[in-house]
Amino acid sequence: MKLKISPKELEERQTTLLKKVAERDMDGFISFSTLSVFYLTGFHFIPTERPACLVIPTEGPSFLFVPHLEIEHAETADVLDDIVTYPEYPGKSHPMEVLAEELRERGLGEAHLMAESPAYGSAMGYAGPRITELLPDLELTLEPKIIEKMRFIKSPAEIELIRESARWGNLAHTLLQEYCASGRTENEVSMRASSEATMVMMKTLGPEFRPQGRTGAAAGFRGQIGVNSALPHAVNINAVMKPGDNLVTGAGSGVGGYGSELERTMFLGEPSRDQRKYFEYMMEMMQVAFDTIRPGIPCSEVDRAVQEVYHKYDIMDTWRHHTGHALGLLGHEAPFFDIGDETMIEEGMVFSVEPGIYVPGLGGFRHSDTIVVTSDGMDFITYYPMEIEDLIIDA
Amino acid sequence: MKLKISPKELEERQTTLLKKVAERDMDGFISFSTLSVFYLTGFHFIPTERPACLVIPTEGPSFLFVPHLEIEHAETADVLDDIVTYPEYPGKSHPMEVLAEELRERGLGEAHLMAESPAYGSAMGYAGPRITELLPDLELTLEPKIIEKMRFIKSPAEIELIRESARWGNLAHTLLQEYCASGRTENEVSMRASSEATMVMMKTLGPEFRPQGRTGAAAGFRGQIGVNSALPHAVNINAVMKPGDNLVTGAGSGVGGYGSELERTMFLGEPSRDQRKYFEYMMEMMQVAFDTIRPGIPCSEVDRAVQEVYHKYDIMDTWRHHTGHALGLLGHEAPFFDIGDETMIEEGMVFSVEPGIYVPGLGGFRHSDTIVVTSDGMDFITYYPMEIEDLIIDA
Repeated sequence: MKLKISPKELEERQTTLLKKVAERDMDGFISFSTLSVFYLTGFHFIPTERPACLVIPTEGPSFLFVPHLEIEHAETADVLDDIVTYPEYPGKSHPMEVLAEELRERGLGEAHLMAESPAYGSAMGYAGPRITELLPDLELTLEPKIIEKMRFIKSPAEIELIRESARWGNLAHTLLQEYCASGRTENEVSMRASSEATMVMMKTLGPEFRPQGRTGAAAGFRGQIGVNSALPHAVNINAVMKPGDNLVTGAGSGVGGYGSELERTMFLGEPSRDQRKYFEYMMEMMQVAFDTIRPGIPCSEVDRAVQEVYHKYDIMDTWRHHTGHALGLLGHEAPFFDIGDETMIEEGMVFSVEPGIYVPGLGGFRHSDTIVVTSDGMDFITYYPMEIEDLIIDA
Repeated sequence: MKLKISPKELEERQTTLLKKVAERDMDGFISFSTLSVFYLTGFHFIPTERPACLVIPTEGPSFLFVPHLEIEHAETADVLDDIVTYPEYPGKSHPMEVLAEELRERGLGEAHLMAESPAYGSAMGYAGPRITELLPDLELTLEPKIIEKMRFIKSPAEIELIRESARWGNLAHTLLQEYCASGRTENEVSMRASSEATMVMMKTLGPEFRPQGRTGAAAGFRGQIGVNSALPHAVNINAVMKPGDNLVTGAGSGVGGYGSELERTMFLGEPSRDQRKYFEYMMEMMQVAFDTIRPGIPCSEVDRAVQEVYHKYDIMDTWRHHTGHALGLLGHEAPFFDIGDETMIEEGMVFSVEPGIYVPGLGGFRHSDTIVVTSDGMDFITYYPMEIEDLIIDA
């Protein structure tokens, strides 16, 4: 059972990155992004006010720069040459001064490094200089999207983890649907389904399983119950379910840092004619997207095809957002199924497909499925029933 | 029952901010921070790839700039003059172009604005120009800490919300301790305690309660069970409890966006002589911190006093982090009880006090209490038993 990316694949990612760095005649790579550190080394940690960074020179050992409190934790990482720690932030000496000294000692004080950002960023009270203020002869060339773009195409191992995530999202959603009933609150249904699914997930996957910065299995509504479901990004209001309600759900889980997205529009009791109508429009949009997705066309084409359905039924007033987004390590990633995104679709990209219809006073209509682009089209990663008759709950 | 900051207080925050802006002869304020938008307007939303910002001119109406999908949601905000939306990101026109046009139309195209950052930032696939690239006559003066510093001193209403949060963290922790037992996993104990406490919390607080971007009540271990508790920032490993284990916990809840922090070191079965010894050292450090905290001294003095206890017992090798951090809207905020932080302590600041001792092969020893600085010392916000005899669980 594979529950995380192998050290070999992590090393390949570093090799790919270093090739891009060498092609540009630079001496290495530096990243202050927690996410990129995880992507390149498999080391997940809790980011705080304390800065961290990863330095991978084209020649010589790489090193992870972390606060002293992470030292034993960092030693468990799979693919790291060295670990360098500083005592604490703010600390007697600023951590960036410790980093500057370390770079100097390693002969990188006057190097030319590729970087995603010039400094560590955190809302948790961090403040500090750019590293180039302390090392005026160090040259940083900013490539903010260098790792993000490497993450566009998912490897077979990444797709396997996303599929594993979808399995437990499916269980959580199944329990969620089972526990929905008139008079119940979104939180009781959601917490019961989520914790039961997580327990089973952990027992099934065994002690090697790590969510790696994500939760276990979870399913819920985020406030999208009844008329409030007309807010595409509603927030938890501990809504009470009542007959006639649209229930717009979301479910997923985290496996080795990867997630999936499953959303369904369900009905508590027999849907009205209007509810059926918008549900069918939404299903037509889903189908149009599924039929359009293939490698070699721009992402925009999928969104444009879906928008035609809104126009066909003259319901652009119910449109609120694009058709979908890539996902993997993050819940939303570029590229987007959006009329403004000309990125070419490629085999191995993983996207959500989730056109939505939002009717104020009635409710929201949105499924979301996670799909992977294949050589000639797409394949489903999520597999929950999507037809209306499967999604009506006895009121 | 007050469950959120009043519109009046939100308006006062805006007034305070605008006074600072006017003192610097600027024409207004612009923020791309989701957190600052919430602090100034009470509007909480889910940040994604889609940029958002708040503009508050010194004269004329303020406006929130959000994606179309947030329109009905933003209309529920308490303190906002106008809402301006753009269709979508990436979209046909980049949202920053829509914003530039809006600023121009409002006569702010050549204004001088105070800003926390020059652009929206998100790891979720956002990319875009700085607003000044589109409006070359717009002048931004960066004050990255302007709102963060306003958040240093908590108002009576903020302290009340933090106290309310601590109440439900206390319940979750009480249940957590009750459910710990040999053979149980951290997740089953944590999920049971957290979901039961959240249900009671929601039923007690009633339908007006909103966690506002936080969860309900939660308590858990984050992997700090047995020898793994020696990692100060361990992550969930679904550890199994066994007799002799240190259990290092964390608990809290979110009320109106505000949180608290409660952590305890518990023992499954009678602690060994070594476990008792380090526990008592840690308790001495807590007491030293409580005795030191008062307005008018720098934050560093608290950490320095605590470090003397490590030196007294010659256990600096077990030191991993500073004594504490401020908290409120975020789990960690500046300033810090850290030898490097010379910020003066002031009445109304809220901090965690959490000196830690980490002994590889044995375990971690750390309580965390949330306290508020009073006119002549400090007052506890968390109130969970802290003596060792209260924290021993029958094995």
